[in-house]
Amino acid sequence: MKKLPVGILGATGMVGQNYIALLNNHPWFEVSYAAASPRSAGQPYEQAIDGRWHLRETYAPSVGKLTVRDAGDIAAAAAEAKAGNLAFVFSALEMDKDKIIALEDAYAAAGIPVISNASANRWTEDVPMLIAEVNPRHADIIPQQKKRRGWEHGFIAVKPNCSIQSYMTPIWALIQKDYEIKRMIVNTMQAVSGAGYPGVPSLDVLDNIVPYIGGEEEKSEREPLKILGTIEGGIIKNAAAPLISAHCNRVPVSNGHTATVSLEFGAKKPSLEEIKQIWRSFRALPQELALPMAPEVPIIVREEPNRPQPAKDRDVHKAMAVTVGRLRPCNVFDVRFVGLSHNTVRGAAGGGILNAELLKAKGYLG
Amino acid sequence: MKKLPVGILGATGMVGQNYIALLNNHPWFEVSYAAASPRSAGQPYEQAIDGRWHLRETYAPSVGKLTVRDAGDIAAAAAEAKAGNLAFVFSALEMDKDKIIALEDAYAAAGIPVISNASANRWTEDVPMLIAEVNPRHADIIPQQKKRRGWEHGFIAVKPNCSIQSYMTPIWALIQKDYEIKRMIVNTMQAVSGAGYPGVPSLDVLDNIVPYIGGEEEKSEREPLKILGTIEGGIIKNAAAPLISAHCNRVPVSNGHTATVSLEFGAKKPSLEEIKQIWRSFRALPQELALPMAPEVPIIVREEPNRPQPAKDRDVHKAMAVTVGRLRPCNVFDVRFVGLSHNTVRGAAGGGILNAELLKAKGYLG
Amino acid sequence: MKKLPVGILGATGMVGQNYIALLNNHPWFEVSYAAASPRSAGQPYEQAIDGRWHLRETYAPSVGKLTVRDAGDIAAAAAEAKAGNLAFVFSALEMDKDKIIALEDAYAAAGIPVISNASANRWTEDVPMLIAEVNPRHADIIPQQKKRRGWEHGFIAVKPNCSIQSYMTPIWALIQKDYEIKRMIVNTMQAVSGAGYPGVPSLDVLDNIVPYIGGEEEKSEREPLKILGTIEGGIIKNAAAPLISAHCNRVPVSNGHTATVSLEFGAKKPSLEEIKQIWRSFRALPQELALPMAPEVPIIVREEPNRPQPAKDRDVHKAMAVTVGRLRPCNVFDVRFVGLSHNTVRGAAGGGILNAELLKAKGYLG
Amino acid sequence: MKKLPVGILGATGMVGQNYIALLNNHPWFEVSYAAASPRSAGQPYEQAIDGRWHLRETYAPSVGKLTVRDAGDIAAAAAEAKAGNLAFVFSALEMDKDKIIALEDAYAAAGIPVISNASANRWTEDVPMLIAEVNPRHADIIPQQKKRRGWEHGFIAVKPNCSIQSYMTPIWALIQKDYEIKRMIVNTMQAVSGAGYPGVPSLDVLDNIVPYIGGEEEKSEREPLKILGTIEGGIIKNAAAPLISAHCNRVPVSNGHTATVSLEFGAKKPSLEEIKQIWRSFRALPQELALPMAPEVPIIVREEPNRPQPAKDRDVHKAMAVTVGRLRPCNVFDVRFVGLSHNTVRGAAGGGILNAELLKAKGYLG
Repeated sequence: MKKLPVGILGATGMVGQNYIALLNNHPWFEVSYAAASPRSAGQPYEQAIDGRWHLRETYAPSVGKLTVRDAGDIAAAAAEAKAGNLAFVFSALEMDKDKIIALEDAYAAAGIPVISNASANRWTEDVPMLIAEVNPRHADIIPQQKKRRGWEHGFIAVKPNCSIQSYMTPIWALIQKDYEIKRMIVNTMQAVSGAGYPGVPSLDVLDNIVPYIGGEEEKSEREPLKILGTIEGGIIKNAAAPLISAHCNRVPVSNGHTATVSLEFGAKKPSLEEIKQIWRSFRALPQELALPMAPEVPIIVREEPNRPQPAKDRDVHKAMAVTVGRLRPCNVFDVRFVGLSHNTVRGAAGGGILNAELLKAKGYLG
Repeated sequence: MKKLPVGILGATGMVGQNYIALLNNHPWFEVSYAAASPRSAGQPYEQAIDGRWHLRETYAPSVGKLTVRDAGDIAAAAAEAKAGNLAFVFSALEMDKDKIIALEDAYAAAGIPVISNASANRWTEDVPMLIAEVNPRHADIIPQQKKRRGWEHGFIAVKPNCSIQSYMTPIWALIQKDYEIKRMIVNTMQAVSGAGYPGVPSLDVLDNIVPYIGGEEEKSEREPLKILGTIEGGIIKNAAAPLISAHCNRVPVSNGHTATVSLEFGAKKPSLEEIKQIWRSFRALPQELALPMAPEVPIIVREEPNRPQPAKDRDVHKAMAVTVGRLRPCNVFDVRFVGLSHNTVRGAAGGGILNAELLKAKGYLG
Repeated sequence: MKKLPVGILGATGMVGQNYIALLNNHPWFEVSYAAASPRSAGQPYEQAIDGRWHLRETYAPSVGKLTVRDAGDIAAAAAEAKAGNLAFVFSALEMDKDKIIALEDAYAAAGIPVISNASANRWTEDVPMLIAEVNPRHADIIPQQKKRRGWEHGFIAVKPNCSIQSYMTPIWALIQKDYEIKRMIVNTMQAVSGAGYPGVPSLDVLDNIVPYIGGEEEKSEREPLKILGTIEGGIIKNAAAPLISAHCNRVPVSNGHTATVSLEFGAKKPSLEEIKQIWRSFRALPQELALPMAPEVPIIVREEPNRPQPAKDRDVHKAMAVTVGRLRPCNVFDVRFVGLSHNTVRGAAGGGILNAELLKAKGYLG
Repeated sequence: MKKLPVGILGATGMVGQNYIALLNNHPWFEVSYAAASPRSAGQPYEQAIDGRWHLRETYAPSVGKLTVRDAGDIAAAAAEAKAGNLAFVFSALEMDKDKIIALEDAYAAAGIPVISNASANRWTEDVPMLIAEVNPRHADIIPQQKKRRGWEHGFIAVKPNCSIQSYMTPIWALIQKDYEIKRMIVNTMQAVSGAGYPGVPSLDVLDNIVPYIGGEEEKSEREPLKILGTIEGGIIKNAAAPLISAHCNRVPVSNGHTATVSLEFGAKKPSLEEIKQIWRSFRALPQELALPMAPEVPIIVREEPNRPQPAKDRDVHKAMAVTVGRLRPCNVFDVRFVGLSHNTVRGAAGGGILNAELLKAKGYLG
C-alpha cells in the first residue's frame, strides 16, 4: 500500500515534534509537509528545528529535508493536496483560539481534512471529539459537517484533553454495559510534559507540586459529556451525566498522567469483579480493525496494591493503553480506582494518529 | 521557670530525632532522658546516633551527652521520675502495635505520662487523640482514664496520623460554626519523610508517584470521627459524620502533605466568603494560651490560584500552620479546596509537643 | 542609627526579589527605591510583582507600597539621591551587557554608587570584583576609579559568578597562608535557581542532568584570577595562578552549588591536617567587623564521609557560609575536596549585601 | 541453534532481575536455573519474587515457573550441568566478598563457568575483568586459569564496576591508536539504580546530591589499570597508566551514569578532530562478531553543546552504547569531555551478557 502523505501544522512545537517522532516508520502515513510560523518557513526542517528538538527519539532524515512552510499559507498546502502530495494534516497549532479556528477552517475549506490536537474546535458543535475506543461513531457526523459547511473533501475532527484519558476509557467500558455513572470526583496528578517545552519551570516542581493547571479542571469536567453525547440534527448533543468534579495537579513526573477516581453509579451497580471483567475484556473498533497505533489491550488491569505508577506503566502497549488498578469500594460513592495513561502519546499525538487511522479505515481519509 | 525534664522513647528513630531537634531551646521542656533499643543502650546519644542522624538541624550538645537507656527498662525511667529528673515522655516508638501498647501502659503505670506519636493507642477508647486546636476538650478524659486504669500520675495521650492534618483543622473550623459536613472525598499527595528513614526508596519516586500508602487511607477515614467525637461514660464515642473517602498517594516531595478536598455540607451551607472568614478568624485554645509551639494563625488562607504548594507553604508559622487555598464551588458536592501542612512538624513531632504544652497548661503535666 | 535608603535596579527579576527578601529587617539598609523596566514603572511594587513573586519569603509591606520607577530614568534616581532618599543601588539588571554597562555608569556618574550582581562590569579593569572574605582590599581601588572617571560620589563594585563561591574562599584561605595553588580541576553541580525564573525547564532536569551551562566554565576559570589579582596603576592586574579547568553541570537541586575540586600546590604543600586547621580558623574582615550579613564562621569543615550536601548544608550561617568536606589526597594532584555554597544567597544577593556592608564599614557608602 | 541453558545466582536481587529481564527472548541463552538464598529456595520464582520485582519490564513466564534453588547448593547445580540443563551461570550474588569468592570457586570447580557481576573476584590475578570492546584478549587467560586451578570445564570471568564504563571505552579507543594517556581526573554523577533496591533513600536525593559513594572512587581509579594490563606468566599485570583521580557523586537520576573527564596525553597528542574520528570509527570484536547484545556503534559522538544527558542518551543502541560529547580543550590537561552509559545495562547485566556472548563466540562456553 502506498503511504498517505500527511502534513503537520505546528511542526516545530512540542506536539508537532511528538507527531513527527511517532510517525517514524508508520505503515500508513508519511510526513510530507511541515508547516510552522513564518519565522521558520523556507528553511529545511532540520535547520528550523536546530536546538529546539527536545525529544529523546529523533526525526526521520526525510523530514529533516522538508522545507518548512508557513502554516498560514493555505494556497501552498492546497497546491500540494491537488498534486496528490498531501492527503490531510495533523494540527498541532499553538496560537489564539480564534486564529486556530480560522486556520483549521481554511484548511478544511481548501479540501484538506484536519485532525486536530488543539482545543479550539472541541466545542464546535458539528466537530467530533474522538477517543477512538470510546466514541468512534461520532465520526459519522463528518458527512453532515461537510454538507453544512459546504466542504467537499475537507473536514475537522479533534481529540479531547490529555487529562481525561486515564479514566475516560474505563468509565466508557462500564457505561456501554449499561452501568450508568451519575457522579464522579477525580483528582489528577499530571506530568510536566503536558505543558510543552519550556513549559513548567523546574523551580516550580523540584521538591514540590502545584495544585493548579489553568483551564484543566473545566476541560476535565465538560469534555466527557460531549464524548458521551449523541448526534442529533447534525450536531453533537452533550450527555447529561456523569457530573464530574476534577482537581488537577502538576507533579514532578516527566510523562504519564495519573488519576484517582471515585464513582457513583445509578441504580444498577456492578460488583468489583464484574468491573474488572468488563475492563479486561473490553475491546473496541480500533482493536477490531487492528489499527496500527491501537493498543492490543486498551485497558490493563493491575492487581498489585501499588499500581499503576507512571514510571512503570506509562509505556505499555506503545504507550497507548490505559492502566487501572486499586479498584475497591468507595466509602462515599460506590467504587474507586486509579487510572493512568501516557499524556503525550495516548493523550496527544498518539491519540491523534489513532483517530486518523480510524477515519481512514472508515473511508473518510485518503 | 524551671524547664520540665522530658524523655524520648525511640530517640534514635526519625520521629525521635524530630522531637529532639524541635525541643532545642524549648522554653518549657528539656530533653533529659533518651531511650531506644537495647542495642543502643548504654552509649552516649552522640555515639548511638553516629551516622544515623538524618536531619538538617542538629541535636543539642546536652542531648549528645545523655546515656541512651533501654526503652524497655521501665524501672530506670521510674527511678528518674522519682528523682524529679523525668516529668513525662514523648513516645516515638517504632515496633509492633502490641509491644507499643504494653510499653506505653507500663510507663503510664509507673507514673510517667506518655505523649505518643505512635498509632498503637489511637483506638484505645479512653485515650484522647488530640489536635490541640480541634479537640482540646478531649484532654478532660484523662482523669477518667487514670481512675479506670488505677494510675495515679501517669496517663496516655496520642496524636492522629499526619495525613489528616491538612484538612482536619479547616473542617473543624466550619463544624464548630454549626456547618455540618456530611461527606467528603479527599486525595492526599504525601511527602516521603512521612515514611521515615530510609523509608521510600528513591527508585520508587524519581520521576514517579505511588498511588498507595499502606494503612493510610483507613486512618484518614476513621481518625477524624474519633477526634470529632464526644466523651461519654469515660470513653470517647465516635462522631457519625463526616463520611470520608481518602485516596492516599506518595509523591516526590521531601516534606509537606497536600490534600485536595471536596465537601458536602448538611442542610445549612456556608458561602465561600463565609468559609474564608471563618478560617481567617479561627483561633483556638493553643492561640489563646499562646503556647510556645502554637502557630500564631492556625489556618492561612491564600488567594493565589496556585497555592498552597509544599515547597513554599510548609514552613510557615514554625511549620505548624495549615495553609488552604483554591476554595471554590465543587461540581459534585458543595465546595472544594486544597489544604497543606508540614507532616513531620505539624503532623508529627511538632503536633506532639503542642499537645504536651496544652496538657501542661491544663495542669496535667509537671 | 538611621538606616541607609537603598535602591534595587531590576527589582521585579529573580535576583531583585532575592535582594528585597534578604533586606527585610536589615539593620543598616532599607529598600526605598525600586526600579524595573518601563512596563512596570508607575505601578506600586505589589501590583507590578503580582503573579511574578517566586520566593517562599515575601517582601516587606513598605516595599509593596513603593512606586516602581523606570530603571532607565537616571534623573529620577538622582533627584531621590539629592533629597537624601537614596544612598546607593544594588544592580540586579538583566539585559544586554552594553546596556548594563551604560546604565551602571550613568547611575555612578549621577552620584549613586552601584553594587552590582550583573556580570557586565566584572572585567572592567578599575572595577573591583569582591568576595568580602577574599579580596576586601580591592575596595581600595574605588578612589582611583572615581578619580579616573571624574565621579565625585558614585562608583561601581561588582561580585563574581555564583559558580566559584564554593571553592574560592577555601582556596584563598590556603593562598593567604603562602600555599601557592598552581593548578586545579573543578566540577560543579549547580542548582536550577542559578538560572532564575522560569529558568531551567523541568523537562530538562527531571530524572536528568545537563552537563553544560552557557558561559559558566569560562567565568569559573577566569574570575578567580582577577579576585586574586593586585591593584597596580589604578587597575586590577590578574594573578597568574591558579590555572583552572572547570566542568559545569546543571543538576536537579533547587538551591546550592556543589563543587568537587582537585588541587595542585606549588613546592610548599600543606598536610591535610594543616588545611583543615587553616580552614577552621579562617576569619576575615567581615568577621572582624561583625558585618550583619557575614557568616560567623566563613568555612565550615565537615568530617562525615558524605558531606557537604546541598539540602543539608546550604542554609548554614544565614546561607552565607561555605561548607567543605571529603578533604583527602588526590591521586593525580595533591589534595581534593568538596565545597558547597548557597548560590542565590552567598553566591548572589547575600554576597552583594555583604559587599555593601563592607564598603559602608570602609567609609565608601552613606 | 538450540539455546544454551543458563543460571542466575542471586536471581531475586536487583542485578539478578536485570539479567532475567534482559535475557527475555535472547537468541543464544535461556534462563533455566534460578538460585537465591535458602529463604527463597523451593518456591516457584514467581512466588519468591512476588512483591519484590522492581523493574518495568517483567520476567518471562517460563522463568516464573522455575523452582528457585539454594545458591549454596552446588550439587544441585552440578547435577543440572551434568544433565545438560545448565551451561554456565551469571553470578549476581550479593553477600560478603569471602563468601562470594568461595561460592564462585565452588561453581567453577564443579564444572560450571561463572560470568560474574560481583566485585569479589575482580582482583583475583588470573580472573579476567572484561569489557568486551576493550580487553577481549584477556579472555585468553582462561585456559591458564583452568589449568592453574585444576578446573576442567569451569572458570570465572568478571566485569568491572559500572562507574568506569562511561569513559573506559572512549579512552581505550585512543590508547589503541597509540595515544598514551598519562593522567586523568574524572567526576562521576551516578544514578540511584546503581545502589540496587531499596538502595538510596529518597530523602537523600530529593532536591539533593550526595558527593560520596562508598568504595566507588577506589574502584574507578584501580580497575582501569587491570583492564588495560597484559597477561604475563598466567596472571594479569596491571598497566602503569593512566593515573586516575575520581570524584564519585550520587545524583537524583534513575538510570545512567555521567562522567566529566580531563585527560593528559603523553608526548603524542591527538587533535580534537582526530579524537572524534577515532571514536566515531571505533569498532571492536563484539561488533565484528555481531554479538546479539553488542551496540552497533560502541561510541556515539554528539556535537550539541548540552549532550550527553542521561534521560536522552542512556537507552541508545539497546542501552549498550557509550555516548560522549563536549569534547574540547582542557585548560589544565589536554582535552576534556563528557561520557555517559547506562549503569544497569551497559554497566551491569547487559555488560555481563555481552561478555558471555564473547566467551561463547571464542569457544569458552557451551
